Amino acid sequence: MSAGRLCAADVTSGIKRLSYSTGRTLDLSGIFPPIATPFLEDESIAYDKLEENLKKWSKIPFKGYVVQGSNGEYPFLTPTERVDMVKRVKALIPKDKLLISGSACESTRQTIEMTNAMAEAGADAVLVLCPSYFKASMTLSALTEYFTSVADGSKAPVILYNMPANTGIDMTAPLITSLASHPNIIGLKDSGGDITKMATVVKNTKHLSFQVVAGSTGFLLPALLVGCTGGINGLANILGEEVCQVYQLFQESRLKEAVQLHHNLVTPNSLVTRELGVPAMKAALDYMGLYGGPCRRPLQPLTSEEMRRVRDAFKAAGYGPNK
Amino acid sequence: MSAGRLCAADVTSGIKRLSYSTGRTLDLSGIFPPIATPFLEDESIAYDKLEENLKKWSKIPFKGYVVQGSNGEYPFLTPTERVDMVKRVKALIPKDKLLISGSACESTRQTIEMTNAMAEAGADAVLVLCPSYFKASMTLSALTEYFTSVADGSKAPVILYNMPANTGIDMTAPLITSLASHPNIIGLKDSGGDITKMATVVKNTKHLSFQVVAGSTGFLLPALLVGCTGGINGLANILGEEVCQVYQLFQESRLKEAVQLHHNLVTPNSLVTRELGVPAMKAALDYMGLYGGPCRRPLQPLTSEEMRRVRDAFKAAGYGPNK
Amino acid sequence: MSAGRLCAADVTSGIKRLSYSTGRTLDLSGIFPPIATPFLEDESIAYDKLEENLKKWSKIPFKGYVVQGSNGEYPFLTPTERVDMVKRVKALIPKDKLLISGSACESTRQTIEMTNAMAEAGADAVLVLCPSYFKASMTLSALTEYFTSVADGSKAPVILYNMPANTGIDMTAPLITSLASHPNIIGLKDSGGDITKMATVVKNTKHLSFQVVAGSTGFLLPALLVGCTGGINGLANILGEEVCQVYQLFQESRLKEAVQLHHNLVTPNSLVTRELGVPAMKAALDYMGLYGGPCRRPLQPLTSEEMRRVRDAFKAAGYGPNK
Amino acid sequence: MSAGRLCAADVTSGIKRLSYSTGRTLDLSGIFPPIATPFLEDESIAYDKLEENLKKWSKIPFKGYVVQGSNGEYPFLTPTERVDMVKRVKALIPKDKLLISGSACESTRQTIEMTNAMAEAGADAVLVLCPSYFKASMTLSALTEYFTSVADGSKAPVILYNMPANTGIDMTAPLITSLASHPNIIGLKDSGGDITKMATVVKNTKHLSFQVVAGSTGFLLPALLVGCTGGINGLANILGEEVCQVYQLFQESRLKEAVQLHHNLVTPNSLVTRELGVPAMKAALDYMGLYGGPCRRPLQPLTSEEMRRVRDAFKAAGYGPNK
Repeated sequence: MSAGRLCAADVTSGIKRLSYSTGRTLDLSGIFPPIATPFLEDESIAYDKLEENLKKWSKIPFKGYVVQGSNGEYPFLTPTERVDMVKRVKALIPKDKLLISGSACESTRQTIEMTNAMAEAGADAVLVLCPSYFKASMTLSALTEYFTSVADGSKAPVILYNMPANTGIDMTAPLITSLASHPNIIGLKDSGGDITKMATVVKNTKHLSFQVVAGSTGFLLPALLVGCTGGINGLANILGEEVCQVYQLFQESRLKEAVQLHHNLVTPNSLVTRELGVPAMKAALDYMGLYGGPCRRPLQPLTSEEMRRVRDAFKAAGYGPNK
Repeated sequence: MSAGRLCAADVTSGIKRLSYSTGRTLDLSGIFPPIATPFLEDESIAYDKLEENLKKWSKIPFKGYVVQGSNGEYPFLTPTERVDMVKRVKALIPKDKLLISGSACESTRQTIEMTNAMAEAGADAVLVLCPSYFKASMTLSALTEYFTSVADGSKAPVILYNMPANTGIDMTAPLITSLASHPNIIGLKDSGGDITKMATVVKNTKHLSFQVVAGSTGFLLPALLVGCTGGINGLANILGEEVCQVYQLFQESRLKEAVQLHHNLVTPNSLVTRELGVPAMKAALDYMGLYGGPCRRPLQPLTSEEMRRVRDAFKAAGYGPNK
Repeated sequence: MSAGRLCAADVTSGIKRLSYSTGRTLDLSGIFPPIATPFLEDESIAYDKLEENLKKWSKIPFKGYVVQGSNGEYPFLTPTERVDMVKRVKALIPKDKLLISGSACESTRQTIEMTNAMAEAGADAVLVLCPSYFKASMTLSALTEYFTSVADGSKAPVILYNMPANTGIDMTAPLITSLASHPNIIGLKDSGGDITKMATVVKNTKHLSFQVVAGSTGFLLPALLVGCTGGINGLANILGEEVCQVYQLFQESRLKEAVQLHHNLVTPNSLVTRELGVPAMKAALDYMGLYGGPCRRPLQPLTSEEMRRVRDAFKAAGYGPNK
Repeated sequence: MSAGRLCAADVTSGIKRLSYSTGRTLDLSGIFPPIATPFLEDESIAYDKLEENLKKWSKIPFKGYVVQGSNGEYPFLTPTERVDMVKRVKALIPKDKLLISGSACESTRQTIEMTNAMAEAGADAVLVLCPSYFKASMTLSALTEYFTSVADGSKAPVILYNMPANTGIDMTAPLITSLASHPNIIGLKDSGGDITKMATVVKNTKHLSFQVVAGSTGFLLPALLVGCTGGINGLANILGEEVCQVYQLFQESRLKEAVQLHHNLVTPNSLVTRELGVPAMKAALDYMGLYGGPCRRPLQPLTSEEMRRVRDAFKAAGYGPNK
């Protein structure tokens, strides 16, 4: 964070150097669903369906909500839609729930601008993915400079977001560890699932108040074991109660029950994340009585065979609309 | 291209089904530089520098210009900047030069919208990259539906753009061959460099007026040999005369000279493409007396050692500011 | 396991169909070091050093030993050396310690032959890596047929060995689950580290006596949590006492201490596995007072800088020759 | 090539430093089939079928034969079988045909031993693949040391063999260029198909008598254009006459005909190499009236659908048993 770098960020985003003092107190322990963005058949945003879903989610002991993680199909939203979604969610959720918003763009300047727009729209923290178009140029020093500049220029605390399956870039433990000492970088959402890396980062940042959260239910419980503080899990859209229960059982040291639940969730979770992705998550929402609806294209609707696989997996695990 | 699909595209972009009759006559034979977007130190677009560069390029027998290929740093431009760039270039180039514009976004609807904005801004054709954020969902059928919808909805003829190093997705010969029969898809820019695939596509589309152009000088000459019609080559920004000469020598069957020139270009080309990327291309522009200037971040300026490597490679190949 | 397939295996290896009844009783719970093969400076096997190391290891509560995992540099041994190593180790270890031997070759017939040679030399079970030279041909059905044939023809129970970093092939949960129902396939050593997959396999094979063991200390503790039965861990060569303690603390539900030890081991472990590989493991053995010695080439000795990193990592974690 | 390194090689393989003077005169211009190893149904080597095939191949203007390229299924042969195959082929081919033999093993010492056994069995040159089990350790310096040691210790000239699809390691232009200056390393078989790299290596080694040969018919013609001297092509097993004709037409500057033939071969070639591999090559041999027979397992026989695809592709291209 040299003066020169800060300077550039200031020019770019037209903001003054910020005080980060509050950032470090934001507590990420608990479960956050990275909420789906509901669309109508014409692919416009269905804000009434969003409200319905939020009403149902409000009965679940979530720590807060993530708007525009990958599950929110954020790359398909216009900048205006992205900010609007945050405003709407902010207005609909209780004050004691955190709102974390994805704010990544490809350029440093656009990310800073979007980050601050999100902060103004009500985000308590922002989730920042690494830029990935110019893969070969995203060296350790480029990524360090990027995240440092974004954190320097951001009015909200920054959570790093590692999602190698989508970006093609896997942020390394040394990169994350080094960024963790920035006063405005408060945590990491890791969706890569490398449990060795998570333990390494937790261990290397123990002296800081840096928090690592698990990006999938597939590894939530092992992540908690090695010191992660919570989860941002797509499955929490669908089975929020159960995902929160994994967290709760772990807190209460009821490990045997936690593992049993973990085992029960692992197959449905894989289907709606790794295997069939967002369309399957939305199909499962519909199946469970929430609003899923279509994805924006090019994401395709499930085939009827895939639909059947999703339903069967939830049914086999004991979950259904009438539970 | 079912009626249903067309319908969705129509709804999305608010346009009527288009007549593609003129598309097929667009001739892509020749060399196109995918022009750099010049920035000032504060990362704003330097339109005067763009004009200066275009004046210098106007003396070179290019077939036309590509605005917002990867070398144009298009992911760092706002939608407004993207369209503005096209308008500016259109106003500055002679009427007989083609203007091809990159118009890809992640969603189908945004790509159609951007495509038509580009067409209205003066683009003779658009270059459409495959969506790549949700990699695992970009199946053969998703990509087929995507490009078909875009081509259905586009007012300008569509050129497919395969750039696996940046997208992490390598469009296959069967996908490309199948898309080639769409009346509004007129060609492919292949930057993957798989010469076997290029020959396969050329052969499989011989009965159509589909045109394949080489996405790098590194394989321009072999690509011409196997039936490609031209090149969209980053190096043409810097050594436009020489890249056009490769094309010309091949046309005149002066193969020995063509190979010699090809060999001479291969090392400088690798440096400003694969190895050091856009920052090196801009550094080379500066070195050769055009305007390169900085990249938008997170792309980093070259280190002085990298700068030296670039200069040395051009010097060793016999190219310099005073040539 | 059709009769036809068995037939082919019989012809190949000249053996009769075997009774697997004892296989299922082999208990893989606990820690196994995949022992290093000690070489002299001329790269011949240093059997006296092997004996010295085994003497030191004998004081550690290992469940048994793995001969010719990746850490044993098995691809550098001749078939004769491979079998000899097993015989020597068998003669040197107490009767109550298990001996598991790697027996993979590229062809089905050679693997069966080597497997049975290992069984005759004293191996209680064999560890079989997937063939990987013809990567594109190693489809689900090819790998199913391969492991089934090997298990059909093997006199010793078979443990699957997934090591994607070295083979370039990551065995999937469906493949492993399907193979788990073979009566002579008793477990999986997973060195890929995908904790989600491990839980999935454990859960899918609960009704069988299939056992999953963690292939690295980097994820041993989380693996135990999700139901794995033990570990085959390179670090156990060097810090066997500590790796066994992780296992023991988990058995005693002393999780807090287990996690603390896990954190302490994670950095030294990464260095001698993922980062610097077998040469670093051997350097650490030397440092800790066991015999490491050189690797067979093309594995290179550590640079002095790498050597320093290894020593520093162990020292920083509190481990050294005089502990 | 320090004295020290040579020394180690000497000890290992028991040979004296060799004079490489003749190596450099070996002329690799022309076409070589990397011959299939014929097996009977019980997977034993069918030497009589080998003889029949060689008799048919003898009417084709090949420059020579490659024994134990990937198409020869060399990883499935025992060391004894590997040497025997070379002896048999040597005895069956005319004196004026070159015999090149694959001799790679994973360890330096075994490769040197095998290399010299091949030389004694009659190989005019050896083809050496890079070791690939310990992928992460195969750094530039490890591979440099490996190939230098092998070349130092080899009685026959060495041809580098780059086959990234099978090894998972893509030898770089700087590595190859640096090795090319070794007096006993005379060329490169590149099966990666990166035409930019081939041109780069040809250009960088122009001052040496280093020869690059194309590892597939898919890029043979473009490779010849950029300065390669010939081809080692799996398809030459099946359509040897035609592959030689591509070479001949290029020599005679009959480019138009060469390209036409290239286009005609590209689809059948892809099927028997990239797509369906060795089993398809053998099925095509059977179809064309040579002996293909089964592969050693785990390579699986084609399904009847795949078989049909192979036949159709050859038929569609105008090739069949009665041509």
